[in-house]
Amino acid sequence: MAIAFKNQLPTMPTTSSTTATSQVTLTQDELKKIAAYKAVEYVESGMVLGLGTGSTARHAVDRIGELLRQGKLKNIVGVPTSKATHEQALKLGIPLSDLDSHPRLDLAIDGADEVDPALNLVKGRGGSLLREKMVEGVCKKFIVIVDESKMVAHLGGSGLALPVEVVPFCWKFTAERLQGMFEHAGCVAKLRTDNAESSELPYVTDNGNYIVDLYLERELGDLNVASDKMLRLAGVVEHGMFLEMATTLIVAGELGVCVKNK
Amino acid sequence: MAIAFKNQLPTMPTTSSTTATSQVTLTQDELKKIAAYKAVEYVESGMVLGLGTGSTARHAVDRIGELLRQGKLKNIVGVPTSKATHEQALKLGIPLSDLDSHPRLDLAIDGADEVDPALNLVKGRGGSLLREKMVEGVCKKFIVIVDESKMVAHLGGSGLALPVEVVPFCWKFTAERLQGMFEHAGCVAKLRTDNAESSELPYVTDNGNYIVDLYLERELGDLNVASDKMLRLAGVVEHGMFLEMATTLIVAGELGVCVKNK
Repeated sequence: MAIAFKNQLPTMPTTSSTTATSQVTLTQDELKKIAAYKAVEYVESGMVLGLGTGSTARHAVDRIGELLRQGKLKNIVGVPTSKATHEQALKLGIPLSDLDSHPRLDLAIDGADEVDPALNLVKGRGGSLLREKMVEGVCKKFIVIVDESKMVAHLGGSGLALPVEVVPFCWKFTAERLQGMFEHAGCVAKLRTDNAESSELPYVTDNGNYIVDLYLERELGDLNVASDKMLRLAGVVEHGMFLEMATTLIVAGELGVCVKNK
Repeated sequence: MAIAFKNQLPTMPTTSSTTATSQVTLTQDELKKIAAYKAVEYVESGMVLGLGTGSTARHAVDRIGELLRQGKLKNIVGVPTSKATHEQALKLGIPLSDLDSHPRLDLAIDGADEVDPALNLVKGRGGSLLREKMVEGVCKKFIVIVDESKMVAHLGGSGLALPVEVVPFCWKFTAERLQGMFEHAGCVAKLRTDNAESSELPYVTDNGNYIVDLYLERELGDLNVASDKMLRLAGVVEHGMFLEMATTLIVAGELGVCVKNK
C-alpha cells in the first residue's frame, strides 16, 4: 500500500481488510486524508451527498470537488452540515442544496471525535452537531472517517468533551442539571468559550446556541437512556452522541486503512 | 360566591369544591381573572415564584404586584417565563431573578391551552413554551389556571395547535418529519407566522427559533412515547406537551371555581 510518501496522494485499496504499510511515520492530518479519500470512493455520479464538517471531512469535500472538476464525478448535489462547509463547497463549485429540497440523501461522509466498537459516535467538538445530526440522520449510508486516535472503548473514553447544544437562556442552570444527571459518571460540565485565546465569550453555534461540554470520568451506562434523559431536559437542543447512525467506519492508522461495516 | 359583578374583585372561596354562582354571565377574561386570583392565594411571603406568560397568567402577575404594593406579600422573588412577563413584572415592581440564581422554585402559576383529565397540558400557543417548561419543571408546586374552555378529553382535542419549537435551519424538513411521525393522528404541521395580519414572516420565539403548530384529528396515543419521538428528532428544540408537571389545577367556569390537586 502506497501511503508511505508524504504529500503524495495514496492509491487506496478497495478491500475491506487492514493493509500493511511501510515504515514512514504519517502525520495525523495525512491519516485523516487517507480515510477521507477512501470514503470518496463510495461516491457515485448522481448522488445527493451529506457534506461533513471538520478537519477530516474537509479532505473529503476537497476530493469530491477535485473529482467533479476532473469530470470523474457528475451530477452531484451536496447538502452541507455547517456554514463553513457550505463556503468550502461553494468555492469548489459543488452544486448545493438543503434538506428542505432533498429530505432523503444517498450518502454522508463525516468525521467523528470518538467511535466506540458498536460504531456509536461522539461528534460536535467542531460545533456543528445539530446540523450534522439532521443531515446524517436521513442518509441511506453514513460513512464515518477517522484516524485511529479517535477509537475508544466507550463514548467519553478519550477524556475529551461530549458536547451538548443548549439555548443561551439560563445556560448555567442547564449545565448544572446536565452535570447532576451524570454524577455517576463523574461528569463535569463546562461552557465552551470562543476560539480566541483567553476569550471568556461563549462559543455560539450556527443556530445561535451555546455548547456545554461534558467531561466524563467513567462510562455513562446505557447510551440510549442517557440520550433520552438529556433530550428531555428543557434547554437542551441536541447532544453529540450519534447512536446507531453510522453504517460504515473507515479508520486510517499507521498499519493502514480499515473499513468496518455495521 | 360574589363573582356576579363585573369589574369588581371577587372574594374567593378557600374550599376545594365547586361553588355555585349567580345568573350573570361572565366573560372569558373574567373567568381567567377569577382562576388567577384564586391561585395567588397560594403565594406566601418569602417565596421564589415562577411567573407565567399569557392572558390568564397576566392576571396572576398583576395580582402579585398589587399584594406587594399593599404590603400583604413581602420578600417575593419572581422568575419570569418570557420577555413579555419580565417587562410586566418590572413595571409592577416585582423583584426578579432567573434560574441561574434560583435553580429551585417554590411555586409557579401559569395558564395552559389545553388540560386533560390527568392534568397533562398543552402550552405554548403564546410562544413561550421552552422557558415555561424550564421554569415550571423545577417548581415544588405548579398551579395551572384556566377557564373551563381549556378542558379537553385528550391533548389535541380542542382542534387547536400543539406547538413545537424548532431551529430555523431546514424547518420545512422538520415540519414534514413531525407531520409524518403523527400521521396516525391525522396530523397537519404548519409554520406559525407573525402576529401581524397576512404576514408570511415566521413567528420568532424569545430564543430565536420558529414554531411549528401541529393540528391533530385524533388522539396521539401514549403521550410519553410521542414526547420522546419528537425530542429525538434533531431540529426539535422543545414541544408544548407538559406531561405530569402540574400539581394543582384551578378552573373557573360559569358554575364557579374548581380546584383539583394531582
